[in-house]
Amino acid sequence: MEPIRIDDADDPRIGEFRSIRERDLTGREGRFIAEGTVVLRMLAATHLRGGDFVAEKILLLENRVPGLAEILAEFPADVPVHVASSAVLDRIAGFHLHRGVLALGRRRQERTTAELIGGLPEQALVVACFGISNHDNIGSIFRNAAAFGADAVLLDGACCDPLYRKALRVSVGAVLSVPYARSGTTADILAALTEQRFAVWGLSPSGAVEIRDVPASGRMALITGTEGEGLPRDILSRIRTARIAQAPGLDSLNAATATGIALYEIAMAQGRL
Amino acid sequence: MEPIRIDDADDPRIGEFRSIRERDLTGREGRFIAEGTVVLRMLAATHLRGGDFVAEKILLLENRVPGLAEILAEFPADVPVHVASSAVLDRIAGFHLHRGVLALGRRRQERTTAELIGGLPEQALVVACFGISNHDNIGSIFRNAAAFGADAVLLDGACCDPLYRKALRVSVGAVLSVPYARSGTTADILAALTEQRFAVWGLSPSGAVEIRDVPASGRMALITGTEGEGLPRDILSRIRTARIAQAPGLDSLNAATATGIALYEIAMAQGRL
Repeated sequence: MEPIRIDDADDPRIGEFRSIRERDLTGREGRFIAEGTVVLRMLAATHLRGGDFVAEKILLLENRVPGLAEILAEFPADVPVHVASSAVLDRIAGFHLHRGVLALGRRRQERTTAELIGGLPEQALVVACFGISNHDNIGSIFRNAAAFGADAVLLDGACCDPLYRKALRVSVGAVLSVPYARSGTTADILAALTEQRFAVWGLSPSGAVEIRDVPASGRMALITGTEGEGLPRDILSRIRTARIAQAPGLDSLNAATATGIALYEIAMAQGRL
Repeated sequence: MEPIRIDDADDPRIGEFRSIRERDLTGREGRFIAEGTVVLRMLAATHLRGGDFVAEKILLLENRVPGLAEILAEFPADVPVHVASSAVLDRIAGFHLHRGVLALGRRRQERTTAELIGGLPEQALVVACFGISNHDNIGSIFRNAAAFGADAVLLDGACCDPLYRKALRVSVGAVLSVPYARSGTTADILAALTEQRFAVWGLSPSGAVEIRDVPASGRMALITGTEGEGLPRDILSRIRTARIAQAPGLDSLNAATATGIALYEIAMAQGRL
């Protein structure tokens, strides 16, 4: 399909891309903005294989089209591609879009925690995030989950939507490739994990077992909380806990880095890598 | 000393705090902006113990003064404390300063790589960064270096200044507590490490040894490169290399997360934690 040329920033055909810094589309029927070549490629891949996400439209800086031909060819022909000059694109977005690659995606299906983990194999690894509202941290946790081959990410209702523009970008598209559910309370998620016979390990500076020494088991879940507070005491008292040794007297590690270290250790213990 | 009230955003006494989002003071005789309570506390600590950094002046939102009394008391009496209303403070900074805690610091001394590592004990761990220009990554690497008790960070001339406002903030002040040098080329740094009998390990997706299996030795250096390119081949061919196992077919880990995992493993192997 020929690209559609956009000369007017108010053109309704690209209305979803307007002022994307100020507002997020998430919550509007699962729509989201994918930015950059790598995330565009991930979106094409999930769309193509009938995954959880589809592309609805694409908007590119005009001079990016030739270099992206191969990726664009992977999208079905009914996904319209729009092109604009740099000046028009910046007016649409509301700021200078350095890379000039945007797509509007839509989450095709929501899955519940129970549906998601019920379908996992007997040897599985999931990450559950409780109350992580920082977009960078959520994005990084997905990136780490993908890097270490985790099967799923579970988010409680207090976590931010991983489809937020920044979270998706920081994840380098992993939000589109690692299956996730975002629903319910921490209690709901813990109950679902127990029901599905997961060995549940919470990450905490006061954890009982050093992360390297956590024994492998078939289905394992790693729980991670917010950076400042960590996991609440009433949760830590109900699950097994692991710590990451650190120099004394310091603030704890960044939540995403801590999760990365823990996922590496558990994935190695499970022989997944 | 009584706080000095500032009512005019153009008051020359607080000129260094003007428009801090747009410009960085670094490069101007080692001056830098420290933001937030945690970084202010680190600055007080380094100033007090005669460390590498001193505070020159402080600028606070007026209603923050009572809550910060304890930290402010740690600074010498000749460090002036200025206070301003929220409106004046925002006009000075050029954007809304949510937390309202700023200090102007100065690096008192520069150390060369050779001076820095020459003084380290026989059991030591340093991180060397080659060409890392991303402020977030430099800040996170310092945070990880502090968390795992590294003795020093070495930066080549192609790395960004860790005193940049954002790098310092992301480091949670670790830039002020972990000794570092930023000078010379990668070749200079490698030569200095070899001269000082460091076992040098480069982190690379194609590394020869899994990071968990790197043998401990007395003085160890971990080299980390940029995220996209990694360490150049001519460097990798001259040093021992370690990898972090990952799921196949993926982009590599974020540079800061990879460094965090590697530092944890090496620090554990050395028995430092």
